Amino acid sequence: MEAGRRERRPRQVSAPRAARNDEAAIIGRFTAAFGRPSPPVVLGPGDDCALLRPRPGEVLALTTDALVEGVHFSPAFSPADIGHKALAVNLSDLAAMGARPVAFLCALAFPERWLPHLSGIARGMARLARAHGCALAGGNVSRARELSVTITAVGAVPVGQALTRAGARPGHALYLSGPLGGAAAGLRSQAPAHRNRQRRPQPRVALGLALRGVASAAIDVSDGLVRDLGRLLDASGVGAEVEPRRIPRARGATLDEALRGGEDYELLFAVPEGRAPALRAAAARCGARAPVRIGRVTRALGLAGLGPGESGGHDHFG
Amino acid sequence: MEAGRRERRPRQVSAPRAARNDEAAIIGRFTAAFGRPSPPVVLGPGDDCALLRPRPGEVLALTTDALVEGVHFSPAFSPADIGHKALAVNLSDLAAMGARPVAFLCALAFPERWLPHLSGIARGMARLARAHGCALAGGNVSRARELSVTITAVGAVPVGQALTRAGARPGHALYLSGPLGGAAAGLRSQAPAHRNRQRRPQPRVALGLALRGVASAAIDVSDGLVRDLGRLLDASGVGAEVEPRRIPRARGATLDEALRGGEDYELLFAVPEGRAPALRAAAARCGARAPVRIGRVTRALGLAGLGPGESGGHDHFG
Repeated sequence: MEAGRRERRPRQVSAPRAARNDEAAIIGRFTAAFGRPSPPVVLGPGDDCALLRPRPGEVLALTTDALVEGVHFSPAFSPADIGHKALAVNLSDLAAMGARPVAFLCALAFPERWLPHLSGIARGMARLARAHGCALAGGNVSRARELSVTITAVGAVPVGQALTRAGARPGHALYLSGPLGGAAAGLRSQAPAHRNRQRRPQPRVALGLALRGVASAAIDVSDGLVRDLGRLLDASGVGAEVEPRRIPRARGATLDEALRGGEDYELLFAVPEGRAPALRAAAARCGARAPVRIGRVTRALGLAGLGPGESGGHDHFG
Repeated sequence: MEAGRRERRPRQVSAPRAARNDEAAIIGRFTAAFGRPSPPVVLGPGDDCALLRPRPGEVLALTTDALVEGVHFSPAFSPADIGHKALAVNLSDLAAMGARPVAFLCALAFPERWLPHLSGIARGMARLARAHGCALAGGNVSRARELSVTITAVGAVPVGQALTRAGARPGHALYLSGPLGGAAAGLRSQAPAHRNRQRRPQPRVALGLALRGVASAAIDVSDGLVRDLGRLLDASGVGAEVEPRRIPRARGATLDEALRGGEDYELLFAVPEGRAPALRAAAARCGARAPVRIGRVTRALGLAGLGPGESGGHDHFG
């Protein structure tokens, strides 16, 4: 964070000693939840920029996503839920690219009433960051009328091995990494499994890495299967046939929730036919559940197999 | 931007044709103001992540900063002012690190009333981005109750040449890249020069690059001279003597505005004594105005030369 770690010492200028809730103290408390960054982060929070030294032969994957109070989380979320989810949705984008998480920056904007909860947000975020070896490299705090947590995550992937949305070809099989609809069900149900699915999504990072050299295209299902599959098909210039009865559903989730619910953060990906055994082996090696085949890519554009009432998905502005 | 460029084509799934203000259309219109990214950005807006291929021998500098409605800009700002300033404050952090701007990601959160103004924001941002060869590589849009523009900028600097805050040593001279207090004066005055200083700060990118190998430490003056000098001194473990009468002031700015006003985005930096001629040559070579020497670094901690009433600076939460 800007003006971060080094600022935990008392200021040595002639200004009065910093109050507990000045900017430096807030940043100091937030960053304290995270470990000291290590290579490839060569300079962490506390200067004008973070410095990151890429490994030779790697490209960097960058993504940014925001969680906004009242839009992306409700008062039922704990501060740790918010911290977890803000980072998770970004790590999910890295996973969909086949990128290894390296570091992230966190921009916090909040009104004073959120001050007591920042350390809870930091704890939830730090726990997930540690699990994926992803360092807090920098950030920013500012005042606002509502809380927003905007994270930019940086990942690394060997040159030429990133999984874009554009590589699906007719005949490739379409797979899902796990059941859908659980997050949507979590909005109406208080069952702990559903609630956790809503508030603590688990980015499929290990599977994303295992899919390098196996999948031809990938996307994470953040806005619902129909919408995100549409994006993958558009980017690849192809169509698909999907068998609705094959779509894995979270226990208690309706077909509609599975197709359009969003926020499940499973991976949707295409695999050339000959690589099905390689896919099974890769998923097993990284400890991921066996991906489920839900259909295949077609030359004919459009999405076949779903009735017209089963289309659509989550649009943030629609 | 996520779901960006490729989404401008009509969706090819069986969903109804996208409305004008769905997420994809909003992103499409915003990104249209920017040119196609070129290397080192190898994949721009429209996939799960942007991809960036660093040059060998360079470290990347990353910084994030947000502009929030009612906090960082007033209704007097035009949309183009907002777009300009949101990027400018990030490029200023790159300049303070001696980093060449490469790319940036832009996370927009806004209520519906801002929809008609997004293209104006994009225009102001794109103009500054072009001037500095900095590509829009990705981003995100989400709903919110107030507008915020959170940018993460990425720069590059050869290994070992980044300008941190920590390299100032006793005896080094302290310099400012230009006059202070103009932005603060712009809050009370409608004189066009002051107003521009407030709304259209010019990041000192060329000078930042020229300071590599010349300056021993640098910071940009975003929160006022006293506060940012304090940060540089703390990071370096040194003190300073400053001569207030030498501090260059914007026309019409008071000494207090120059010392504590903030938002001028000039560079403050330390230079070993023997390098004064190299500094003059470097500034002249890049077309920057001649930096002004305002004091020197001391072994004794603290900031001498300013009366106690002249301390302080801008704290976002103080």
